Amino acid sequence: MVLAFELFNASVQHWLDVVGIFVFALSGALLGVRKNLDVFGMAVLAESTALGGGLFRDLVIGAVPPAAFDDLGYFLTPLVATALVFFLHPEVERINKAVGLFDAAGLGLFCVTGTTKAYEYGLGLTASVALGMATAIGGGVLRDLLAGDAPQVLRWDRDLYAVPAIVGATAVALLIQTDHLNGTTASAAAALAFLLRLAAMRYGWRAPRAWQRRTSAVGED
Amino acid sequence: MVLAFELFNASVQHWLDVVGIFVFALSGALLGVRKNLDVFGMAVLAESTALGGGLFRDLVIGAVPPAAFDDLGYFLTPLVATALVFFLHPEVERINKAVGLFDAAGLGLFCVTGTTKAYEYGLGLTASVALGMATAIGGGVLRDLLAGDAPQVLRWDRDLYAVPAIVGATAVALLIQTDHLNGTTASAAAALAFLLRLAAMRYGWRAPRAWQRRTSAVGED
Amino acid sequence: MVLAFELFNASVQHWLDVVGIFVFALSGALLGVRKNLDVFGMAVLAESTALGGGLFRDLVIGAVPPAAFDDLGYFLTPLVATALVFFLHPEVERINKAVGLFDAAGLGLFCVTGTTKAYEYGLGLTASVALGMATAIGGGVLRDLLAGDAPQVLRWDRDLYAVPAIVGATAVALLIQTDHLNGTTASAAAALAFLLRLAAMRYGWRAPRAWQRRTSAVGED
Repeated sequence: MVLAFELFNASVQHWLDVVGIFVFALSGALLGVRKNLDVFGMAVLAESTALGGGLFRDLVIGAVPPAAFDDLGYFLTPLVATALVFFLHPEVERINKAVGLFDAAGLGLFCVTGTTKAYEYGLGLTASVALGMATAIGGGVLRDLLAGDAPQVLRWDRDLYAVPAIVGATAVALLIQTDHLNGTTASAAAALAFLLRLAAMRYGWRAPRAWQRRTSAVGED
Repeated sequence: MVLAFELFNASVQHWLDVVGIFVFALSGALLGVRKNLDVFGMAVLAESTALGGGLFRDLVIGAVPPAAFDDLGYFLTPLVATALVFFLHPEVERINKAVGLFDAAGLGLFCVTGTTKAYEYGLGLTASVALGMATAIGGGVLRDLLAGDAPQVLRWDRDLYAVPAIVGATAVALLIQTDHLNGTTASAAAALAFLLRLAAMRYGWRAPRAWQRRTSAVGED
Repeated sequence: MVLAFELFNASVQHWLDVVGIFVFALSGALLGVRKNLDVFGMAVLAESTALGGGLFRDLVIGAVPPAAFDDLGYFLTPLVATALVFFLHPEVERINKAVGLFDAAGLGLFCVTGTTKAYEYGLGLTASVALGMATAIGGGVLRDLLAGDAPQVLRWDRDLYAVPAIVGATAVALLIQTDHLNGTTASAAAALAFLLRLAAMRYGWRAPRAWQRRTSAVGED
């Protein structure tokens, strides 16, 4: 079973990875525009956003050299995204929305591929879910730190971000355990996380803060 | 000798690790409350504070997958700490003191376990001391960076933080070299670092700044 | 060929590494003075600046334990630099220039040694160039993050920083491919990157920003 599962994934996972890298890189390069960085700053943010989560995952599971440095396509994709944004980026007022949309797509794809790869390298299902989530949110955290922002994923006044990744990663873990993981179900799990994130952005879903704090927050903020 | 030392440590080190993870996680989750983060931000800060230093240590010594992702208890402990803080966290005015106390306890425990594990993986005694200190302060540095603060360990206007960890780690190195490391002496080394940190907080011990700067600081700050 | 190349490099690379570590550490310790950190903050900045890029490179290529923790000289050199800066640091008004100069020297040396070591560990030439650049700029990025600054390498209003490192790393890759890498050519590549960086600082060379943004920047900034 495991063998077939791995063989199947060789191409699907690579394709999902490249798409995830591309959309995350777009979000990084667009944030670079918003932060008024030069083209190299844009490229660094694009590479960090796109490859940071997977690099962390690969270092943790011992996949050395990490895919980010082993697969030339993985490394060059963010540069293509940077060039696209550099020459063709949309009007400034549309950037915020685009960053959010592409970021949500990367979130969905990476929680699926991160969980899958971690499991393939022998981690337990719970650890795989945790690492899948870390793969999905790690690049964005690195992007925000490098851009000088507080990581968006931590802020209470931002819409749910980690929860969609956890749901997507957990769906993959359940699919693995019930032997139902394949290209279709993996894509469905990615779409689930993506749509959950979009819905959270659309309807302003937020996570609760600690009890005491919540009640006193009215007079405080 | 080495074998006995390792066998002995299997349980003691695990127990010390879990306690250190728990108290560091409390400090991270409490900082999350103080920073007004939501429950996921609290959990991320708790996990990062508790596991960040050990994760760095394990990547450096090649212990892959790191204990943080290999031992389910290590991963779940910060979630328990987060839940505790979420539902039962103390009054806001008591948080500052609690963060400092738990942080000092984690500092003491991690400089001991970090030094021991680094030595077990074949690093030299000096490198083991350095990595033990990095294990102890790494989680807090990551916590502060993620929370958007300058790392406390670097600030001249904060009480001694790295020195207690260096003293504890050096004590462990001396115990290893003189063949006296066991559960009792390891606990004593952890307590030494813990008490040194508490004393530094109590009496405001600080480290000196560069000479030129110090003399001109009167008129400057 | 590869064997001779490695044998040759054993001493040259070590020497270049120590010099690069020393000058980067000076830049880190001097920034610590400028940021008014205490002596431990200075040492942490010196160690992070000097060893951060190489540590990242070694983790990526699987050289575990990394040179930073395996070679006592690598670890102690930043402490010597810290002590020098602590007791003898120049007048405050000269610090800014000194940080820039030493940083440029470290940049030149590390893009060469980083590219060489990555190639020796089996990475492709493009990935080796990328990792050589990451080795060169990684320590400075870590230094800036720890000091609470936005990484200088990303800012459009700063002179070219990544480009000299890319040029130096690419020169090394071409030397490797044409079988001309030796101590003299490696030093020349390092000098090329160093001088490019100095020229960028002297003449204010900057990288372009995204098109739309650049035209609207007149009224905005």
